[in-house]
Amino acid sequence: MDIKHAIKQLNDIDSKLHAINHAQAMIYWDAATGAPKNSVEGRAKTLSILTGEYYQTLVNETFDSLLKELIEHKDELDFITLRKAEEFRNEYDKIAKIPVELYTEYTAIQAKASVAWEEAKEKSDFSLFAPHLEKLVDYNKKFIEFRGFHKHPYNTLLGDYEKDLTTDELDEFFSELKHTIVPLVAKINESNVMINNDFTKVSYAIEKQEAVNKDLLKVIGFDMDSGIMAKSVHPFTTNFNRHDVRITTRYFEHNPLSAIYSTIHEGGHGIYEQNIGEELDFSTLGTGTSMGIHESQSRFFENIIGRSYPFMEYFYPILQNAFPENLKDISLYDFYLATNKSEQSLIRIEADELTYSLHIMIRYEIEKLLLENKVLVKDLPALWNKKYEEYMGLVPENDAQGVLQDVHWSEGLFGYFPSYALGSAYASQFVHAMRKEFDLSEDLKKGDFSRINLWLKDHIHKHGCLLNPSEIIEKATGESFNPKYYTDYLEKKYSEIYKLK
Amino acid sequence: MDIKHAIKQLNDIDSKLHAINHAQAMIYWDAATGAPKNSVEGRAKTLSILTGEYYQTLVNETFDSLLKELIEHKDELDFITLRKAEEFRNEYDKIAKIPVELYTEYTAIQAKASVAWEEAKEKSDFSLFAPHLEKLVDYNKKFIEFRGFHKHPYNTLLGDYEKDLTTDELDEFFSELKHTIVPLVAKINESNVMINNDFTKVSYAIEKQEAVNKDLLKVIGFDMDSGIMAKSVHPFTTNFNRHDVRITTRYFEHNPLSAIYSTIHEGGHGIYEQNIGEELDFSTLGTGTSMGIHESQSRFFENIIGRSYPFMEYFYPILQNAFPENLKDISLYDFYLATNKSEQSLIRIEADELTYSLHIMIRYEIEKLLLENKVLVKDLPALWNKKYEEYMGLVPENDAQGVLQDVHWSEGLFGYFPSYALGSAYASQFVHAMRKEFDLSEDLKKGDFSRINLWLKDHIHKHGCLLNPSEIIEKATGESFNPKYYTDYLEKKYSEIYKLK
Repeated sequence: MDIKHAIKQLNDIDSKLHAINHAQAMIYWDAATGAPKNSVEGRAKTLSILTGEYYQTLVNETFDSLLKELIEHKDELDFITLRKAEEFRNEYDKIAKIPVELYTEYTAIQAKASVAWEEAKEKSDFSLFAPHLEKLVDYNKKFIEFRGFHKHPYNTLLGDYEKDLTTDELDEFFSELKHTIVPLVAKINESNVMINNDFTKVSYAIEKQEAVNKDLLKVIGFDMDSGIMAKSVHPFTTNFNRHDVRITTRYFEHNPLSAIYSTIHEGGHGIYEQNIGEELDFSTLGTGTSMGIHESQSRFFENIIGRSYPFMEYFYPILQNAFPENLKDISLYDFYLATNKSEQSLIRIEADELTYSLHIMIRYEIEKLLLENKVLVKDLPALWNKKYEEYMGLVPENDAQGVLQDVHWSEGLFGYFPSYALGSAYASQFVHAMRKEFDLSEDLKKGDFSRINLWLKDHIHKHGCLLNPSEIIEKATGESFNPKYYTDYLEKKYSEIYKLK
Repeated sequence: MDIKHAIKQLNDIDSKLHAINHAQAMIYWDAATGAPKNSVEGRAKTLSILTGEYYQTLVNETFDSLLKELIEHKDELDFITLRKAEEFRNEYDKIAKIPVELYTEYTAIQAKASVAWEEAKEKSDFSLFAPHLEKLVDYNKKFIEFRGFHKHPYNTLLGDYEKDLTTDELDEFFSELKHTIVPLVAKINESNVMINNDFTKVSYAIEKQEAVNKDLLKVIGFDMDSGIMAKSVHPFTTNFNRHDVRITTRYFEHNPLSAIYSTIHEGGHGIYEQNIGEELDFSTLGTGTSMGIHESQSRFFENIIGRSYPFMEYFYPILQNAFPENLKDISLYDFYLATNKSEQSLIRIEADELTYSLHIMIRYEIEKLLLENKVLVKDLPALWNKKYEEYMGLVPENDAQGVLQDVHWSEGLFGYFPSYALGSAYASQFVHAMRKEFDLSEDLKKGDFSRINLWLKDHIHKHGCLLNPSEIIEKATGESFNPKYYTDYLEKKYSEIYKLK
């Protein structure tokens, strides 16, 4: 084999797949930020053709042989080329093992399920969605059969979002969370500390919010020459390459914290993408390595920094200055408390930092039971409500507020939720390691993110997909994933805030 | 041959090419309306890969054979399929006849020429651009050699923008224009009518301009559910499909007419694209048939309607109401005059309706001489200035205001300019035919564009690329292209305005 030629072929295919990703991401970005109402059909048509093109570029005998040859000669490959070959091998096998007809059927089922879920949620009637959800679960089970699994069928799905993650690890992780968070939530419920956040529910002019958020995004280190911020219904981040990263936020007149924490959260995702190493430019490996690591960066910015007292020392005077009519009589500490108010809650996306992971735990447990055939789809509402009562002390009034609240299952996304909770836990472990090197608080008080971002870049961001999540964690923190840092962090923070024990 | 199967193959390729066009147009749209500063390199990379993909999809032996077979069985094809096969055959031959290496070299030359032109224009030094322009001309001559030509080498380039257009027709067309416009311009220069437009040069708040322009776009019939308007440095229109058409305009605080006429002009292009027949959905034939016909629609809206007295009767009160501080003492007629002020001018894009075509004529004559080897690139500045003196009565002070003013030649666009003037002439012929059926003035006074747009849709828009420019003109007006309608229109309009003779 002419190894040079083979590497060039690999890189050409990588570039083409990257270009297709770029085009598709651009079309999605446009759809969420500016496209006209009637553009839906044309967009779907073009996206499906580009998806087909991606598939055909990746899955064909020529590429299969190329990958085999490269991996046979792995000793002759540089590190990046080897990683590319391995990544494509994984992606190839994942797709190629499943018959194309099954995919096509699945796509049609997804489309119908989305429509049904919307109607079911609107009418708060799970029975409208149940038959579709059953099919989605069945097809995912079939996919797992074709793809194979280690130990537990759910592991195959988990690995799509967090490489090598297993139910064993997650069981242990959530067990630790449960033992920390459930009692904490109960204690807070009985605490004498009453946090007032009424002043966050009055009118904040949206134009002024926009100016504050734009400045905030720059302060935390997002490079406005290599990215933009726009508005969309649901905040999100997308990246075409490290020089073109897009985030969105959203504004509510009577809830300024919503925009602020969306901006910081998506800004965290965005900074990760802007800091990918240049050796991965225009490669499909030039992006964040996993859902969990990505979420660790957004949650690090949103919660560990964004809801910390030292950062408030810097940021609150700016906010107070922008909205004196609402905040002039509110002290720094009272504002800090308001951003950290914890309450038992039914809706995941409105949950506070502490209770958030309980929402994820409930979804994880249900997904696992589904995959183990230990619960039927029709029984999910009752199971859902039982778990909310047990862990959160609350029962949803209806299915719209309960089992129907999230879009994920209607899109066939199983195994995705855990990465949200993992992200928070990773973030705590990262910041513990960072603190060994320098005192973040001093930087945050000054609004100086340079050392923080440099640490994140060196230890996490620059690697892109060259390292797996577990490798990133090992290298950055000197040990494997340990949820103790997260539970310690939560316990310390909320005990202080609510003066517990 | 299995004709059904062959037609399906053709349609699949058509769909794929359409999807690639969609993705590329989206990326260009984004670049002009929102992309961050550092996005240039990534965009260039992705666009070049998509261009390569377009090329490979179109130019290959399988497709060549398919087209041959389809055209051999043309009697068995429906009209749309036949047109598709013919169009792709043309496009195929145009590209395939030229060696790929030549294209690659040319792309590199274009890139360097663009940079050189920018510098040359900034420094007003033609010698910096001349060697690049020489190469661009040489390569276009080589392309013509490979592609062949009828009668005159320039015809090959003209046909790229206006099918079947020849230098014979253009010579006659511009000769008529010259004999009408040159004396008209001279007479206006000596007319006693002095048009005051000082009130168009004071401050018009941009926010209010935006509201007026948005309403204006809706009034003329642009469907805001199937398109959007944004801002960009240079106004333009792009279309992904008839349900997603994008236009831009630009605002100057001290020149409200700039935005208004950009909006109407691009709106005309946009309405054309929104009215393409649904049988051409998601086909590469589902777009305007030529540069000239496209420009006829934008110029029809901009000049024939937008600068007409009846439309002013509707629109001026709205504008006056939005800007009473500037316009309350200005009469409708004085405003009408201000929008039609004609002056000898040196810069094409700032020219008025009357003198605009003179600018085009000069460029046409120069391009033709270049292709005939009758002028050397180094002698262009002198030739340019001589022609401006002869036709316009003015000489540019420097090359930046003269031969270097337009971007087109730096991009290798030869044969493109004439379509601007043709568009205006076509528009006059179309409106003459429209007037036989109903009285536009009554509709315009009411701001009612329904009959006008229906006529345009039925006679021009809906056909997309199913008819050639000459077929459109014949069908819509009952005769072949006749520039007399244009010269008559200009003579009548400007004689009235400037009370000539």
